[in-house]
Amino acid sequence: MGGFFGITSRQDCLLDVFFGVDYHSHLGTRVAGLASWDPEAGLQRKIHDISNAPFRTKFEHLLDTMRGTSAIGCISDQDPQPLQIRSNQGNYLICMTGVITNAEALIDQYLSFSGGHFASINGDRINQTELLSALINQKSDFAEGIRFAQKSIEGTASILILTDRGTLIAARDRLGRLPVEIGKREDGYAVAFESFAFHKLGFEDVCELGPGEVVEISPDGLTQLVPPGKKKKICSFLWSYYGYPTSTYEGVNVEEMRYRNGAIMADNDREAGRIVPLDYIGGVPDSGTPHAIGYANRSGVPFARAFIKYTPTWSRSFMPSNQKDRDKIAKMKQIAVKELIKDKNLLFVDDSIVRGTQLKETVEFLYESGAKSVHMRSACPPIMYACKYLNFSRSNSDLELIARRVILELEGEEGFQHIDEYSDGTTERGRKLRETICEKFHFDSLEFQSLEGVVKAIGINPCDLCTYCWNGKE
Amino acid sequence: MGGFFGITSRQDCLLDVFFGVDYHSHLGTRVAGLASWDPEAGLQRKIHDISNAPFRTKFEHLLDTMRGTSAIGCISDQDPQPLQIRSNQGNYLICMTGVITNAEALIDQYLSFSGGHFASINGDRINQTELLSALINQKSDFAEGIRFAQKSIEGTASILILTDRGTLIAARDRLGRLPVEIGKREDGYAVAFESFAFHKLGFEDVCELGPGEVVEISPDGLTQLVPPGKKKKICSFLWSYYGYPTSTYEGVNVEEMRYRNGAIMADNDREAGRIVPLDYIGGVPDSGTPHAIGYANRSGVPFARAFIKYTPTWSRSFMPSNQKDRDKIAKMKQIAVKELIKDKNLLFVDDSIVRGTQLKETVEFLYESGAKSVHMRSACPPIMYACKYLNFSRSNSDLELIARRVILELEGEEGFQHIDEYSDGTTERGRKLRETICEKFHFDSLEFQSLEGVVKAIGINPCDLCTYCWNGKE
Amino acid sequence: MGGFFGITSRQDCLLDVFFGVDYHSHLGTRVAGLASWDPEAGLQRKIHDISNAPFRTKFEHLLDTMRGTSAIGCISDQDPQPLQIRSNQGNYLICMTGVITNAEALIDQYLSFSGGHFASINGDRINQTELLSALINQKSDFAEGIRFAQKSIEGTASILILTDRGTLIAARDRLGRLPVEIGKREDGYAVAFESFAFHKLGFEDVCELGPGEVVEISPDGLTQLVPPGKKKKICSFLWSYYGYPTSTYEGVNVEEMRYRNGAIMADNDREAGRIVPLDYIGGVPDSGTPHAIGYANRSGVPFARAFIKYTPTWSRSFMPSNQKDRDKIAKMKQIAVKELIKDKNLLFVDDSIVRGTQLKETVEFLYESGAKSVHMRSACPPIMYACKYLNFSRSNSDLELIARRVILELEGEEGFQHIDEYSDGTTERGRKLRETICEKFHFDSLEFQSLEGVVKAIGINPCDLCTYCWNGKE
Amino acid sequence: MGGFFGITSRQDCLLDVFFGVDYHSHLGTRVAGLASWDPEAGLQRKIHDISNAPFRTKFEHLLDTMRGTSAIGCISDQDPQPLQIRSNQGNYLICMTGVITNAEALIDQYLSFSGGHFASINGDRINQTELLSALINQKSDFAEGIRFAQKSIEGTASILILTDRGTLIAARDRLGRLPVEIGKREDGYAVAFESFAFHKLGFEDVCELGPGEVVEISPDGLTQLVPPGKKKKICSFLWSYYGYPTSTYEGVNVEEMRYRNGAIMADNDREAGRIVPLDYIGGVPDSGTPHAIGYANRSGVPFARAFIKYTPTWSRSFMPSNQKDRDKIAKMKQIAVKELIKDKNLLFVDDSIVRGTQLKETVEFLYESGAKSVHMRSACPPIMYACKYLNFSRSNSDLELIARRVILELEGEEGFQHIDEYSDGTTERGRKLRETICEKFHFDSLEFQSLEGVVKAIGINPCDLCTYCWNGKE
Repeated sequence: MGGFFGITSRQDCLLDVFFGVDYHSHLGTRVAGLASWDPEAGLQRKIHDISNAPFRTKFEHLLDTMRGTSAIGCISDQDPQPLQIRSNQGNYLICMTGVITNAEALIDQYLSFSGGHFASINGDRINQTELLSALINQKSDFAEGIRFAQKSIEGTASILILTDRGTLIAARDRLGRLPVEIGKREDGYAVAFESFAFHKLGFEDVCELGPGEVVEISPDGLTQLVPPGKKKKICSFLWSYYGYPTSTYEGVNVEEMRYRNGAIMADNDREAGRIVPLDYIGGVPDSGTPHAIGYANRSGVPFARAFIKYTPTWSRSFMPSNQKDRDKIAKMKQIAVKELIKDKNLLFVDDSIVRGTQLKETVEFLYESGAKSVHMRSACPPIMYACKYLNFSRSNSDLELIARRVILELEGEEGFQHIDEYSDGTTERGRKLRETICEKFHFDSLEFQSLEGVVKAIGINPCDLCTYCWNGKE
Repeated sequence: MGGFFGITSRQDCLLDVFFGVDYHSHLGTRVAGLASWDPEAGLQRKIHDISNAPFRTKFEHLLDTMRGTSAIGCISDQDPQPLQIRSNQGNYLICMTGVITNAEALIDQYLSFSGGHFASINGDRINQTELLSALINQKSDFAEGIRFAQKSIEGTASILILTDRGTLIAARDRLGRLPVEIGKREDGYAVAFESFAFHKLGFEDVCELGPGEVVEISPDGLTQLVPPGKKKKICSFLWSYYGYPTSTYEGVNVEEMRYRNGAIMADNDREAGRIVPLDYIGGVPDSGTPHAIGYANRSGVPFARAFIKYTPTWSRSFMPSNQKDRDKIAKMKQIAVKELIKDKNLLFVDDSIVRGTQLKETVEFLYESGAKSVHMRSACPPIMYACKYLNFSRSNSDLELIARRVILELEGEEGFQHIDEYSDGTTERGRKLRETICEKFHFDSLEFQSLEGVVKAIGINPCDLCTYCWNGKE
Repeated sequence: MGGFFGITSRQDCLLDVFFGVDYHSHLGTRVAGLASWDPEAGLQRKIHDISNAPFRTKFEHLLDTMRGTSAIGCISDQDPQPLQIRSNQGNYLICMTGVITNAEALIDQYLSFSGGHFASINGDRINQTELLSALINQKSDFAEGIRFAQKSIEGTASILILTDRGTLIAARDRLGRLPVEIGKREDGYAVAFESFAFHKLGFEDVCELGPGEVVEISPDGLTQLVPPGKKKKICSFLWSYYGYPTSTYEGVNVEEMRYRNGAIMADNDREAGRIVPLDYIGGVPDSGTPHAIGYANRSGVPFARAFIKYTPTWSRSFMPSNQKDRDKIAKMKQIAVKELIKDKNLLFVDDSIVRGTQLKETVEFLYESGAKSVHMRSACPPIMYACKYLNFSRSNSDLELIARRVILELEGEEGFQHIDEYSDGTTERGRKLRETICEKFHFDSLEFQSLEGVVKAIGINPCDLCTYCWNGKE
Repeated sequence: MGGFFGITSRQDCLLDVFFGVDYHSHLGTRVAGLASWDPEAGLQRKIHDISNAPFRTKFEHLLDTMRGTSAIGCISDQDPQPLQIRSNQGNYLICMTGVITNAEALIDQYLSFSGGHFASINGDRINQTELLSALINQKSDFAEGIRFAQKSIEGTASILILTDRGTLIAARDRLGRLPVEIGKREDGYAVAFESFAFHKLGFEDVCELGPGEVVEISPDGLTQLVPPGKKKKICSFLWSYYGYPTSTYEGVNVEEMRYRNGAIMADNDREAGRIVPLDYIGGVPDSGTPHAIGYANRSGVPFARAFIKYTPTWSRSFMPSNQKDRDKIAKMKQIAVKELIKDKNLLFVDDSIVRGTQLKETVEFLYESGAKSVHMRSACPPIMYACKYLNFSRSNSDLELIARRVILELEGEEGFQHIDEYSDGTTERGRKLRETICEKFHFDSLEFQSLEGVVKAIGINPCDLCTYCWNGKE
């Protein structure tokens, strides 16, 4: 994933940008960058590996030597950023969030006609931000260039540029899958993925960019370079999975959405007569916790934290890109509170069930700790399609998905004709899917939030939501 | 605070000790050390500053070069440890948790008679672990030496030694204020402050050392060098404040104790008729949260996380020793979820109210975020005496305590004659104290857990608990 | 300056390339890089700042993780190198020595037609190696591309490329101003600026590339891609100033050339009747020393090291690009041996007299140490033109040169019409120049090596030598 | 070896101490330390490993945070220093140069009676500076303590102490084997091993401490605590081997002594009729070079540098304590100038011939490079006894010495009865020794400087010189 943050101001703003970028640390663990512009010092930039020490530690010494009335920074899970580029568009710094899924095709096409080259390479992989800038440079100005890049790119690319005039250019990805928020303070403007980052620094909300919208910002105001498109497809998982509890997108706070979502799941269970004797409701940390709180508050069953993450030295589990490392770390960082498990009837809410690898260990651990019964709830519908826009499910193919694998097992490829039924717990096929997973994992019961339920919990116009991974609608 | 961890085994155990020490990271943020013994390599040791990068990052490269069939390590908030000492007792490594409050007197006394010296000094401060070892070396063996040291020391000193024979010597402080836990696995034994650390590594509980007890441990078994004393005074705050949710001391889990404690507070409020209209119950993170969950579960009012700590880059707030830094960091790392605050009636549970500095900002922030009413609950009685055994309140004098300051304000030093009444909310003086603090902080109501309540929530023999900071009983 | 080194072999050669690059450390102090290719691991690369720790220290840990059957590396005084580039010519690594003096014009021209960009930028400065590669990429193969780049570039660019097939492509600059040497060992070939680097690793000389010559090298042999040009202009200062004593260029060893050069100066002095009473001959370290040895051996006057450089912690004085730092460091690192100066008549040989700044302090220090007389000799003719091919004199304009400044002082700009006379110590103007500098610096006498003398000392075909800085001949 | 430097001043002197310590870098390559005292900041100290980066690089950042009106520092080849000690003598910092050869006995004795301990340990080795301080602390003041320590210690210990009153206490070892020099400047005093270090900083010579002399120094003046002893035994190798060319001890400059020594050797050869046809005289770098210059100047044969050390990245060869590393590094850092060797008759001067390991490779390399003949000269007599005072020969036993080994070979242990004859080249045994070594190393001739010659070259009272390693006189 990754995230960016920037300010353009009438005064030095580097310290604020330092803190603002730091507030995006939950979005990535690999590499981070900070860049500034100052009428005298010009452009400065520094990139550090943050895989074994947090952003703050790696960048705080820069506060002594860098300064800028405009500055940008980013946390990245992929390529080193921001890049400094000189082209026919001048000397500028650029970073992006998202992923270019047709990168190889675009690179070949570019090299075949441009006479240009790529210089930010790690082994065989070309830095996607350099590819993005190469596309932008094909046109005579940033507006046209970004429009061209967005049209060419498959995937998602939100962009933040710091120009050699000290202005910021912010562009949201073509279908608004990821947020770009604008804030205002007396001395200037801020751009962020996470609006709470600029709220904590005294900025107030101005607007959220629309899909594909591009603006140029100076301390004196915003100029729209490209108007927003009509179609929006913001990622539903921002709320249900990887948003931070303090995050607010499209006016909807993540924590609050999760309470609502959990409450709807409790209602669903009650309405469907799925009432079982329970001692505690718990969440699989971190994202499952607030869904569970919502469920507990609505159902009246006590909430308890039977799993605790050992946080002082571990960052969040989303990050490592290799599954084996993820599993191993996950196992060591989750610690069971046996006193809250032994001889107890438990209902657990997880944010989602993707491949199921991690869940299996979780449940085993619960039974080892003496749980009497374990009921599992997924805070979203079965995931039937691997994400092709943000690559957040990190699945190389649909067949890594547990739901798909179970369908294949039940009736072969033929079953993929009936994905809608499998998603729906009220159909025969839907019931069968849930039962089969239950058996595999030794759950006493399993249910998924319905598509209607999660959409209702988010609460914005359903057309504006991307629900591709659940129902395959593009 | 700080904590230690060690293993003596029939096979190389350095990786396990690495993970075991890491699980004590919540107990300190300054400095850490790792030492090992191996029949061939002998004693090896490394110490690193961990103030800007976690233990894992600083020590993981040592896994390539160190090895040992016995190893110890520690997280420390004060002095660099373990120290390697050579004396008439041989060549050994030693670390401690706790604090020696009469250090200066002991140093003067030692230098006046011994002809010895101290060599681990930072500025004017002598490393307390070196002082401890100097005391131990006064006698002809470890048993006598530790007995002598414990008798001389005011404060608290739990000790872990790695001898040049590869055995561990573990000693709990004289009154058992801090825990020392022993675990067993097929290949050997583990010693820990936090038993969950060795549980995660496959060890099972053997015993908890008694007050002043000293044992020597080899892979083949334990030998008691000094039997436990009769009097025990384990710190109550281990459960209510600085223990980790997964920690278990004297057989009582921290998370569970907090749920019970919150439930008792809810009962107290109900019984005293302190029923107010409430939308949410919340906890001041991190320690206040489970107290609040317990309160919410019992009261039926929904639990909500209106404050979220931004954890990816910040470690826990307990650590910095200077108040100004603590306040500043606290402010930036707590993020309000305005949607859960605006126009809401809220009841917040904090683990304790010490100086009140941090609490003031918390409340102001709530009102700024539009709270309709804020009711505050302290999960323990008013703190009337600064801790002189563990120095955990980090107060230089009783007069830094908010309760003391209010008493002084209300009726001068005379008031200190009536501390028992002030502690008790049912007396006139107790009521006055609560009202005055309420006004200062603009709470709509304030109540403290009773001494009986917190003791009941812990649930062990009350004689074994130190409650000095609440009632002054030594 | 800077230098490069590479090997292509049938076995892993990274350790050898590590040592080979290290032997170029005298050529730069800013930044260094190491890159490798291996059939399995593909291309790998690492760049480090070496301004405060030597190459060995910064790169030795890479020997654990990198490997390659082909590898290249460089020491650079300007831009980070080698760069990894992907273009229509594939994925390759490239480094250069020399300087592109028309960089800005080439950049503008490139950006105006190519649609490409530059991504390796520091502040406002584009990495010259990226510019070089951009030029090479304009053509369909390396041979044509390098030919085009050499034609476009003003200045000097010797090139070493590591291709994604593991071959090396080595190209000497168009006029052969800098050396590129090829060596052979059983397992493959080496390319170096300094041939002694590969001699120490067991390679034997194969050839020196001719001006503009380009070869591709695999372990199986060399293929000539571009034949050498006819015109050669190798820099005379390689011998008289910045070559290492162990270096050999065009078959002429640096140390030996300097002995010959000193001997010719002694002969010149004798023939011109400039015989003065002398106790010692000394050299201004480092480059002046062997010139002085040659003078002493020929004249029969004892050689003595009245100045000693404090080398353990200082690198050579040539490197820092800012004059103030150079002066300050120079002063602290030269230590006088007063016993060899006091009451002595001394003749000192310096490699050259450029701006004269450093020399002034040297002489003052001699008189402070009690020298009876100080006679100065420059091992080359007066420098009348700032180098525009290699920028080694680091002068921004001719008027920083002491000789020019004295001429201006003596007769104004008119004097620049008579530079030949000023260079020649036998003319009236030449005599006047020497007398004026003598007075400024309080020398007892001053003489310069003649152009004929230095050319004779080098001993190769005079047409092949660049003597631009002395006589302005291009 | 190692060396120390300190200043006590009326103004901040940390920068000067930084430079002053740096000028002792030729004396050690392992570890260095810097400590300061200031009326406000008190005592501060920092120690760094300098094995892979020079003192300057490791300590320059401290200039921002440390300050002091008094400061000391040291370069050490053994233990980390200065140590900060608190004892009955107060809080002080201490460093030493030299070696305690009876350390184990002193440690056992100390632990048996004192009740004290050692805390600065690396593996099994106790820091010798802590041992020294433990001895000093046995008495009631520094004067008595140092007197006691010097009486107890076998070996050599020169001492520099920084007290908690900001004064310096400097003590020369009991027999004055190493120098301690005092300098004065308007604002205070300096103490150094190398007087050129304080000369470069504007101090003038005050005095050299006498053997065993102890002084306390404040900016206002010196107080003698212990008067000098009568017997002096300064190490002759300070001049002939490990002193820096700019060093001056007992009023005799090292470089000048070496010229004289070389000249005497030339005279000896001439007088003995050892005249051979020679093209060049060369020195084995670094120490052999000035001996060779002296020889060349006297003999009239040209001096040439046929071997050049590659200095930019290598520190001097004396340092590594393990022979294998020393050999390997020696081989890579010496580079032959073949043009000065091929078909030439050469005479080489080495500072000494100890084990002969390195010399063997040197000669082989000369013959490989085509030398016609190689004549070797040692700038001192045959080394017959391993140094037991400074351990500079780093030999564990006399039998590592090449001279001893040859004697053993020639006539067994019996030969050790005739060491005087073997030393003397004019005896039959002396001639035999030289011939045998000649054969082993394929020299065309070999001669040693005579004892009289080297003593004459030094020029001080022969009684004051230690010549133990040559003639066994204690």
